[in-house]
Amino acid sequence: MEVIHGQHATADSEPGAPGWISRSDRRSFLRRSAGFGLALPFAVPAIAAAQEEHGADSAEGDHGEESAAAHTEAPVASSPTQPFARFDPLLAPVEPGPKTFDVVARDVVRYVADDVACAGWSFDGTIPGRAFRVVEGDEIDVTFRVDPAANAHHSLDFHAAKTPPDKNFRTIEPGEELSWSFVAKHPGAYMYHCGTPRILMHIGAGMYGAIIVDPKEGWPEAQELIFVQSDLYLKEGSGGVKVPDYERMRGAGAMDYVVFNGHADQYVTEPIRLKAGAPVRLFVVNAGPNVWSSFHVVGTVFDRVCVNANPKNELFSLQSWTIGPGDGACFEFTLDEPGIYPAVNHAFGHADHGAVALLQAE
Amino acid sequence: MEVIHGQHATADSEPGAPGWISRSDRRSFLRRSAGFGLALPFAVPAIAAAQEEHGADSAEGDHGEESAAAHTEAPVASSPTQPFARFDPLLAPVEPGPKTFDVVARDVVRYVADDVACAGWSFDGTIPGRAFRVVEGDEIDVTFRVDPAANAHHSLDFHAAKTPPDKNFRTIEPGEELSWSFVAKHPGAYMYHCGTPRILMHIGAGMYGAIIVDPKEGWPEAQELIFVQSDLYLKEGSGGVKVPDYERMRGAGAMDYVVFNGHADQYVTEPIRLKAGAPVRLFVVNAGPNVWSSFHVVGTVFDRVCVNANPKNELFSLQSWTIGPGDGACFEFTLDEPGIYPAVNHAFGHADHGAVALLQAE
Amino acid sequence: MEVIHGQHATADSEPGAPGWISRSDRRSFLRRSAGFGLALPFAVPAIAAAQEEHGADSAEGDHGEESAAAHTEAPVASSPTQPFARFDPLLAPVEPGPKTFDVVARDVVRYVADDVACAGWSFDGTIPGRAFRVVEGDEIDVTFRVDPAANAHHSLDFHAAKTPPDKNFRTIEPGEELSWSFVAKHPGAYMYHCGTPRILMHIGAGMYGAIIVDPKEGWPEAQELIFVQSDLYLKEGSGGVKVPDYERMRGAGAMDYVVFNGHADQYVTEPIRLKAGAPVRLFVVNAGPNVWSSFHVVGTVFDRVCVNANPKNELFSLQSWTIGPGDGACFEFTLDEPGIYPAVNHAFGHADHGAVALLQAE
Repeated sequence: MEVIHGQHATADSEPGAPGWISRSDRRSFLRRSAGFGLALPFAVPAIAAAQEEHGADSAEGDHGEESAAAHTEAPVASSPTQPFARFDPLLAPVEPGPKTFDVVARDVVRYVADDVACAGWSFDGTIPGRAFRVVEGDEIDVTFRVDPAANAHHSLDFHAAKTPPDKNFRTIEPGEELSWSFVAKHPGAYMYHCGTPRILMHIGAGMYGAIIVDPKEGWPEAQELIFVQSDLYLKEGSGGVKVPDYERMRGAGAMDYVVFNGHADQYVTEPIRLKAGAPVRLFVVNAGPNVWSSFHVVGTVFDRVCVNANPKNELFSLQSWTIGPGDGACFEFTLDEPGIYPAVNHAFGHADHGAVALLQAE
Repeated sequence: MEVIHGQHATADSEPGAPGWISRSDRRSFLRRSAGFGLALPFAVPAIAAAQEEHGADSAEGDHGEESAAAHTEAPVASSPTQPFARFDPLLAPVEPGPKTFDVVARDVVRYVADDVACAGWSFDGTIPGRAFRVVEGDEIDVTFRVDPAANAHHSLDFHAAKTPPDKNFRTIEPGEELSWSFVAKHPGAYMYHCGTPRILMHIGAGMYGAIIVDPKEGWPEAQELIFVQSDLYLKEGSGGVKVPDYERMRGAGAMDYVVFNGHADQYVTEPIRLKAGAPVRLFVVNAGPNVWSSFHVVGTVFDRVCVNANPKNELFSLQSWTIGPGDGACFEFTLDEPGIYPAVNHAFGHADHGAVALLQAE
Repeated sequence: MEVIHGQHATADSEPGAPGWISRSDRRSFLRRSAGFGLALPFAVPAIAAAQEEHGADSAEGDHGEESAAAHTEAPVASSPTQPFARFDPLLAPVEPGPKTFDVVARDVVRYVADDVACAGWSFDGTIPGRAFRVVEGDEIDVTFRVDPAANAHHSLDFHAAKTPPDKNFRTIEPGEELSWSFVAKHPGAYMYHCGTPRILMHIGAGMYGAIIVDPKEGWPEAQELIFVQSDLYLKEGSGGVKVPDYERMRGAGAMDYVVFNGHADQYVTEPIRLKAGAPVRLFVVNAGPNVWSSFHVVGTVFDRVCVNANPKNELFSLQSWTIGPGDGACFEFTLDEPGIYPAVNHAFGHADHGAVALLQAE
């Protein structure tokens, strides 16, 4: 089951020539990239990327990354900054059965920390995108669209799906849509994200979220939360709004923020309220793009950690657990007494950049 | 059970207003930090931090980080460098039963490598602090004090304890003490550390150690060792003594040293002597603050690795195991024949900065 | 069983004074290194290393790392660039029984990406070295030689072997050989590498490969592949050929390439062809030297991941798994339908530097 509706056909969407792996474009790009000392595999569109890389030395230099010529390469501050809305970390339960996901890629300008506005690309207008939750065995109908006003083309890759990426995760243009379906066969806490080259930029610009696949036998009762960690690399854009900094994304280590659910301060300013003495299950997905998480909650010990939130992968009485970019886990614990328990990335250089949330047990 | 004795009451120690989460201070700080493009959550004292961040641009600039005005923000070389004393890596066995921990936060100047002296903050005068060892089920009475001569306030967070951090891990001032107790319910190789903001600086300055909680059924007989890994970021202080470099701690990756038990060369200059052909159990706690460890011993294969040193979390015949900052593990192996077997962080850029210890089997 | 044949005896190869741990050399070096603010444990030869570190400030400065004076310290472009040959990622099955490994350390100039030539040190002329495969219980006779034309001395450390490193992993000079044997007792996906100081340079220059030890009960039938990940740090050498950049290896994070099987583009230019709907087992060894891998295949979910490719260490339905430098794992999965499935290091700053391979299911 697959449908494409769109205003304009491109090389990317022609059957048999999915753009992100287009052989001729890629070869052409690789020839160029070798000359630049770069390695940007399966990068499309090659020419735009090449132009941007040389932007500073060429006619495009005057326009920078926000020029029309490079319009597919980076977010721009083309709309007003949307008011801050705390990302609700509470995860509602779900019943088994077929699901429908309608997802729209949209440009957005949002706050990443108090008073720090940043242009990004999003799924459905929030960064991270909303957390999906399904049950092992559910059939999921996906319809993915790119907002006609978007400044770039995009795609949608669910880590929970087994499907040919060049078919169902393929790039579509603004105004197009793509429908397909999959069965969520494997329990886990999965990332979803845009997989359009330059993928690093599409993830770094905000195109990620979590999809939780519950085991079909269910989970023990608990207060359930979702955190998506990401690391942000920013530079000055226009009008006081920051934009993603691709060069620093590539250099790793000098991030501006490492955040839970997209905003550095949101769960410090307004802690997450939980019931003391009652079990908590916290799903963590690390969207990256670059840094690992050593996830820890101060003042408790995890009774059980399930690697990728699969109850077959149990570890007991952990203080911390490492989650790579593009991976997930769930953490079960109790906050025994009322108090404030910070959840952190215990790589404290990261916590110091915002990877802190306060859990207030009452 | 909780007692505070102290010379002066502060906002931090007033009941109901634990300093490290003080709402008004924090909000005030967040307003400031947003202006600086920073994210330093639950940072207290806000004003001192803010002043230091702007030190170079303000009246405080002349005094630098070692000025009285910023006296809570970084260690200074206020005492003579203590003579080098090799950190004994041998871990003695322990009997079950109640324990009492008396811990004092103290300023210290110690060697981090041959001829490299560095000012730090310590627990009980050594970096890392001494390794505690208890048995699952033990009740532990903690009395934590800050040396009246200390240049900063501090706290003490045991990863092995389930307790409200805002109560029992709270910050106390020089001359104060705090008593509380906990039951070590979960076996593991845990980190303990100062959790006072700026936590990154307090950990980076040396305030960490290991607490091993043995499973109540005990461990098989072995020669037992403890390594605490940490990464050090230094800059020139006064009088030829280095001081921690907070800016480079935040930037990650450009550490000066990655060390086992606080000193880059100690187990190369004087290898750790073990009996060949007899089992070894090596507990490793990674204190960070920033880098992961891919722990490996050259010339052997680990028969068993227990994630967080919990025998329920067994992995078999590993060459290496990844330990995040704020996490731990134990490694069981035999050095079959006499020889010298280096233990390393197999991220060799880290080994090259000092994360090497020689195990001499005889 | 141990034999050394060689043209010239050195302090390193004298019985009882294995060079890499020579006490007097090491102490002498440590005295020097302390003066440099360095920590380069068990580094030999001390004097050459010391000279190179101060090269820019001394008479050696004019010659740089390619001078004869520093000839043991870094690869040089002393031979023509060998034509590109794609590293075959298919892993052939193996029968149990005794094995003989003849390994020669050789200088090499090879392509690390299209049109990017780099001088390196290799095992047997390829980077990575060939993938060895044996069965648990096999006895392996190793003969290691250093090419008489090599510009440095070298050693060979098999992570799969339990043996005294100062004996059987010791450094030999150009023209020498060393024979010894071991029994591969522990199933796993192990790294092998040169362990001669400066080890970081020897690994960073290309001296690594994989040795797979199958469990004696065998593996279920599958299409089997081997990937060795490594991170490359390069600088300009002579004649348009790059050379390894030791300073950047030490700084971590600013790599030029992260590659599978030694070349950034090889499996994008020519994807790896697999049968759709049939099981795949992909062994991954991370040679480093510095960066971790969060290994992922787009469009599938791993049915089973075995930590260090030991079937006792099973994890189920993972999207990604973290592999540290000097570690390994195997990934079992099926590509359900024809299509192109990229395998990546999901730390996308790394994928963006070349850690991408296309799996083409047909």
